[in-house]
Amino acid sequence: MNTTPAPVSSGALGLPPHVVILGGGFGGLYAARALKRARVRVTLIDRSNYHLFQPLLYQVATAALNPSDIAIPIRRIVRRQANVNVILAEAEAVDTAAKRVILSDGAVSYDYLIVATGVVSTYFGHDDWARYAPGLKTVEDALEMRRRILLAYEAAEREQDPERRRDWLTFVVIGGGSTGVELAGALAEIARHVLTRDFRNIDPRNARVILVEAGPRILPAFSPELSATAERTLGRLGVEVLTGNPVTDIDDGGVSIGARRTGTKTVLWAAGVEASPLAQSLNVPLDRAGRVLVRPDLTVPGAFEVYVIGDLAAFEQDGKPVPGVAPAAIQEGRHAAASILRSLRGEPPAPFRYRDCGLLATIGRAAAVAERGSVRFSGPFAWLLWLLVHILWLIGFRNRFLVLSGWAWTYVRYERGARLITGEVRDLMETPSRRVEPGLPEKPLA
Amino acid sequence: MNTTPAPVSSGALGLPPHVVILGGGFGGLYAARALKRARVRVTLIDRSNYHLFQPLLYQVATAALNPSDIAIPIRRIVRRQANVNVILAEAEAVDTAAKRVILSDGAVSYDYLIVATGVVSTYFGHDDWARYAPGLKTVEDALEMRRRILLAYEAAEREQDPERRRDWLTFVVIGGGSTGVELAGALAEIARHVLTRDFRNIDPRNARVILVEAGPRILPAFSPELSATAERTLGRLGVEVLTGNPVTDIDDGGVSIGARRTGTKTVLWAAGVEASPLAQSLNVPLDRAGRVLVRPDLTVPGAFEVYVIGDLAAFEQDGKPVPGVAPAAIQEGRHAAASILRSLRGEPPAPFRYRDCGLLATIGRAAAVAERGSVRFSGPFAWLLWLLVHILWLIGFRNRFLVLSGWAWTYVRYERGARLITGEVRDLMETPSRRVEPGLPEKPLA
Repeated sequence: MNTTPAPVSSGALGLPPHVVILGGGFGGLYAARALKRARVRVTLIDRSNYHLFQPLLYQVATAALNPSDIAIPIRRIVRRQANVNVILAEAEAVDTAAKRVILSDGAVSYDYLIVATGVVSTYFGHDDWARYAPGLKTVEDALEMRRRILLAYEAAEREQDPERRRDWLTFVVIGGGSTGVELAGALAEIARHVLTRDFRNIDPRNARVILVEAGPRILPAFSPELSATAERTLGRLGVEVLTGNPVTDIDDGGVSIGARRTGTKTVLWAAGVEASPLAQSLNVPLDRAGRVLVRPDLTVPGAFEVYVIGDLAAFEQDGKPVPGVAPAAIQEGRHAAASILRSLRGEPPAPFRYRDCGLLATIGRAAAVAERGSVRFSGPFAWLLWLLVHILWLIGFRNRFLVLSGWAWTYVRYERGARLITGEVRDLMETPSRRVEPGLPEKPLA
Repeated sequence: MNTTPAPVSSGALGLPPHVVILGGGFGGLYAARALKRARVRVTLIDRSNYHLFQPLLYQVATAALNPSDIAIPIRRIVRRQANVNVILAEAEAVDTAAKRVILSDGAVSYDYLIVATGVVSTYFGHDDWARYAPGLKTVEDALEMRRRILLAYEAAEREQDPERRRDWLTFVVIGGGSTGVELAGALAEIARHVLTRDFRNIDPRNARVILVEAGPRILPAFSPELSATAERTLGRLGVEVLTGNPVTDIDDGGVSIGARRTGTKTVLWAAGVEASPLAQSLNVPLDRAGRVLVRPDLTVPGAFEVYVIGDLAAFEQDGKPVPGVAPAAIQEGRHAAASILRSLRGEPPAPFRYRDCGLLATIGRAAAVAERGSVRFSGPFAWLLWLLVHILWLIGFRNRFLVLSGWAWTYVRYERGARLITGEVRDLMETPSRRVEPGLPEKPLA
């Protein structure tokens, strides 16, 4: 790396203070927006050129939406905000003493820093599982999941051996949180409704979808009643729910759950996340998942000008952790921006207070669970609420119209618009079972 | 590979004849459709699971459309046609003596074979240019072009060195056929209209777009008048057109055109195609580009049950080659299917006759050229015709509505809906010039 110039105090140069934001997710983006009218210079750094609407990422993984339906170029979002500079780069470390962020190809100095780099999938020490069971945090992850799901049906269609064919038609989702539930529900719908007439040698309705949760119930963030409702709804969709047993092994032939072995070629990982590795460079206390134990005003101990927000922040309120959901990240981003403005005016910091927006998880078409405080409901009404909330969130993004039309189409036709297998198909061909097409269909034609 | 069973005659088993179609492009797909009511078994083999609407692929490369807007799962297209079996596999060779197609992972026997595997990009012996100048034949190609185009602007925004910045903002399209013209026009529109307000340190309107054609004029398949019109229109859009000089070298720093060197980081290849390598295994005469010199009924010498259609076939009519366009492939696919049915009825083969549908090329928004026989026109009317023709073609595919809404939006807002940089961004970071962000904008804020 080049030598980096000594940090320059913006004040000494007569320039407005420099606020650097790491991460263009919900937290970082809303922090930048909240600084719109402030006399500061904002630099927003992300390693992707787009903001990802992560709550709908599972719909890309299951071929219902295109990546660009839920990903919007960050430059486009902030292009009217003249005080924001967007940089496509990867932050590797924060040097709080020098007030500097080290990028993979340079460095940038700050007066205030907002760290919002989120979380990554974790395999709890079994990193070798990653190749068999992709996680779902990025667009690339989602496309890889989509590829594997669609290729599994193609392979099953060609497979002559009944046991191997059954393995290709077995889909295991690991992790019973909302992502896992959403994935399992969508997989069941694909099998039962989307692909039904597309194959000649297999019946996609025979596909098994298994949802595995190590804890005693799925959707542990919800009340036990809604967990039970979700489990029943998944059951009606044809999903087998296995709770109370952790996954003990994953390889290219199957999954071991407790003592039980299930043959499968497609495992999707929704079991755990840990903090983005950047947190470690802050040299402040972290929780078990590597998240930063922030102070009440979201700054970190020893560096009052550094805020950590969103999924990367571990923040407790009334004895309960604030959940890793978009509304929390948005509120924290706005709070960090407001705190910076208070600090510039010489006012003391104010503590952050999370306003609970409730929890929502969708299970399938016209099925969802919703909970806010003591209000709990499920079924088509919860699903409509889920749809409405997500549509409202998307307002302001150009993709709204396309997402709506795509969804409407899916709803009416039970279709999946993005059923493309991209990347190398050869991977499939390299499975141990090489096939011979006898050119004879199993059922003679009429 | 496994040992393959000896070819089985369908007739001996009392089964309907087996028609194998290699390639799910326009030719293969329309051949399969034309066999809908016939008492034959059809196996359609493609290495992708989708049919690609290739005439609009450049719109994916230039971030206007999503892959799934122009790619439709083959299974979905033929799912109501009970006599078609779709196989996702790569054909490696044809053994005409044994009436068998060798797949990368097996083999399949046929009674009739339709080969429609099309063409691939060729670099005229300079295969090392491929890494600097991607071609445009597949979805992956288009996404790679999109990635490079968008990353170039990101890199330019961060580049401090004016010369290197200029190279990042120089886009060279090689090949003045319709794909090259369409790419160059779209690149100019992105620079002049789409990205204008998105950057702080560069003005995308300063981007140079250069279209290089080795021959004396662009769009050589059109009349000289329309070539001149297209060149003028491109000039108005800001594209520099260089004709009469071949490219002599391409590396990671630029392009040599004749004796002239142009510094650029983004080169797009639209210069040439050659036949899919499968053609060689047929052991029949090929033309210079490796295409099969078919007989008047589209079969190959010595194998009356093997048809070659679409871009892979070299077919002359009235002393002129039939162009490599979708209508020709469709007509040939239908002819091959009809010929097979004639053969099954014991009728003699009929010669193929191409019905000229004319040529269309779009240059930019409301600009195109059209030619059919002696009828030639250009401008907004030709563009409307182009739009209409492509919309009509898409009818029957589910994406029609989304393509229309996406286009309407683009037209009204000068937007690009699919401006996502996917894949590894690190590639960009590994350029020789490592950057230091001084944290100081070039223009002080008001």
